[in-house]
Amino acid sequence: MPVYRDPVDGLILDQAALQAWTCRLLVALATPDDIAADVAEILLASDRRGIASHGTARLPNYVALVEAGVVDPSGRPVIARGRPSLTLFDARNGWGHHASRVAVDWAIEAARHEGTATAVVAHSNHYGIAGWYALRAADAGMIGISLTNSSPLVAPTRARRSMIGTNPIAIAAPAGHWGNFCLDMATSTIPRGRIEVAARRGETLLEGWAIDADGRPATTPSAALAGSLQPLGGDETHGGYKGYGLALAVDLLTGVLSGSAFGPNILGLFSTKGPSDLGQSFVVIDPAAIDEHGVFERRLEGYLGQLISAPTIPEAPNRVLIPGEPEVEAERLAASRGIMVDFEHHAALARLADRYGIDLPDASRTAPP
Amino acid sequence: MPVYRDPVDGLILDQAALQAWTCRLLVALATPDDIAADVAEILLASDRRGIASHGTARLPNYVALVEAGVVDPSGRPVIARGRPSLTLFDARNGWGHHASRVAVDWAIEAARHEGTATAVVAHSNHYGIAGWYALRAADAGMIGISLTNSSPLVAPTRARRSMIGTNPIAIAAPAGHWGNFCLDMATSTIPRGRIEVAARRGETLLEGWAIDADGRPATTPSAALAGSLQPLGGDETHGGYKGYGLALAVDLLTGVLSGSAFGPNILGLFSTKGPSDLGQSFVVIDPAAIDEHGVFERRLEGYLGQLISAPTIPEAPNRVLIPGEPEVEAERLAASRGIMVDFEHHAALARLADRYGIDLPDASRTAPP
Repeated sequence: MPVYRDPVDGLILDQAALQAWTCRLLVALATPDDIAADVAEILLASDRRGIASHGTARLPNYVALVEAGVVDPSGRPVIARGRPSLTLFDARNGWGHHASRVAVDWAIEAARHEGTATAVVAHSNHYGIAGWYALRAADAGMIGISLTNSSPLVAPTRARRSMIGTNPIAIAAPAGHWGNFCLDMATSTIPRGRIEVAARRGETLLEGWAIDADGRPATTPSAALAGSLQPLGGDETHGGYKGYGLALAVDLLTGVLSGSAFGPNILGLFSTKGPSDLGQSFVVIDPAAIDEHGVFERRLEGYLGQLISAPTIPEAPNRVLIPGEPEVEAERLAASRGIMVDFEHHAALARLADRYGIDLPDASRTAPP
Repeated sequence: MPVYRDPVDGLILDQAALQAWTCRLLVALATPDDIAADVAEILLASDRRGIASHGTARLPNYVALVEAGVVDPSGRPVIARGRPSLTLFDARNGWGHHASRVAVDWAIEAARHEGTATAVVAHSNHYGIAGWYALRAADAGMIGISLTNSSPLVAPTRARRSMIGTNPIAIAAPAGHWGNFCLDMATSTIPRGRIEVAARRGETLLEGWAIDADGRPATTPSAALAGSLQPLGGDETHGGYKGYGLALAVDLLTGVLSGSAFGPNILGLFSTKGPSDLGQSFVVIDPAAIDEHGVFERRLEGYLGQLISAPTIPEAPNRVLIPGEPEVEAERLAASRGIMVDFEHHAALARLADRYGIDLPDASRTAPP
């Protein structure tokens, strides 16, 4: 449920063709085929779900990290240690998407026997959208929770410096005819990308979104970009300390638990000064361990039906939404017309295509909005 | 980190004496001794931690539930089914505090062997402060997560009706010389008790806290009490859909997963029309399963030290806080001077003492603030 939509004008690319191209680019960076397939699948899932900020638009950053030698494109996760329901994977500084796919798949299999299992990933890199891994469990009929820490962009309540990441929480579960329930949220009020959109559009910011470098509410995008995001809730009187606490809890369960970097010790976003050394965690719960098969799913289905039927407030643009609905709507659109990328995004991919000699698939212009 | 403090004028009671009295009262309600001891311990923990709304102040409501026959004071939890790391307990409509203590203790023991374990409680009642159960795991050197659903008091984003509880999330972990990290938060911006405090003080409300019965921002306590709380974040532009999503995720992991009531189907707070039929879940993770003993704790200790040293914003009343610090400060105060209860709270306990013929311990007047 994003609070904004990117401009709908841009270029359309075929999903499968863009995924195949992404895969070829990753292989050209010395990524083994199977790892490249995971990374491409997860990046395209983001583009399909309308979360352009976490999809192929990040490829220029990823390429820079590999070219600088701070991500090992061939790194494969290994099991470091653990017990039947809790395992630590060392991602060995490989692609975070692949290490995390391996980890969540381990947790899904272990949960079948144990009822629940948690996979913790150490020394990892960015893993794209948190929701993908939670949905992996939901597609297996289970409840999945996906967490990662990230570069410090958020100021803890009362602090005027960025000390903590936007550390997302995703949770997904099968919900009958609704498909999958999928909450996928940063623990900041807004993502940094929302400020960049405001800058492009010349908008001012709402209070509770960000503070400036002096710790005062940031009203302009430039002030916010020089300052910090605020945790979910905004300032202290609006419960921002809860968002701060949640961001910290995510870090505790990922960076701190895995023995990777955490909080202010994580390098800046896409810094090529050294490995990102991120942590991820995946909790999978199998409802079938404690109930008849399918009963959980039908209960959730009924609940969501009750919620969307609620009478609405006067300002509501539409009915109550279920977490994940806008993303499923975006997937439908992508399936029918392809992936829409804005002109800047397309130009960046075209530059990579030139540099690595891998032709970008043809694009068509969208109908103007 | 509460955004308000209750008035500090009231009466002081000895901690141990109030706990013993609570225990006797519960036994007089036909609660077996061991169950009464659990309930009294958890209620007093709330009073000690400065969360008066969840401690002995609730006894009049609890007594009414037992007297109406909608809570079974002798009900004992039984294991319904499960696998090595995931167990469903049926609380059989007994005290939620006891069933939850049994459940989290099971999860702590199971986590020692399995690495992580989750206990889910069905057909339960109110369990007091979520944090107590998370702290139980932290005291055992582990990470504890405690969740419960609750009566509908919160309007989902865009809805103008209360459809979902304030469904708290608590997470605790050992943090070296800081004692335990303990985040214990409702997923609404503020608790309902904050509105009641505003009513007593004649204060107006901030936007983002509550809506009135027509779904417009509630500016007065009476309008809010006739309406609904808003989820953490407030309205849609301030990320309130994230608080809504979190409340829903908690319900999914408690009421829906356990096969108890959920969302709008839960009776009103302390309704005596029928059993509350709440669900609780406890996730316990043993860091020692994937790392040297004590290393996790030292990392967390270092992290929290970094956070409290952050430079502060101009409006900060003090340094950055660690989740749980104000509660530990309240515990210190309670240990040195006893439990402070306000006059209304004291009068309610005195009425119960009269009715059940169990003398309330002596109280002394606090020094005026």
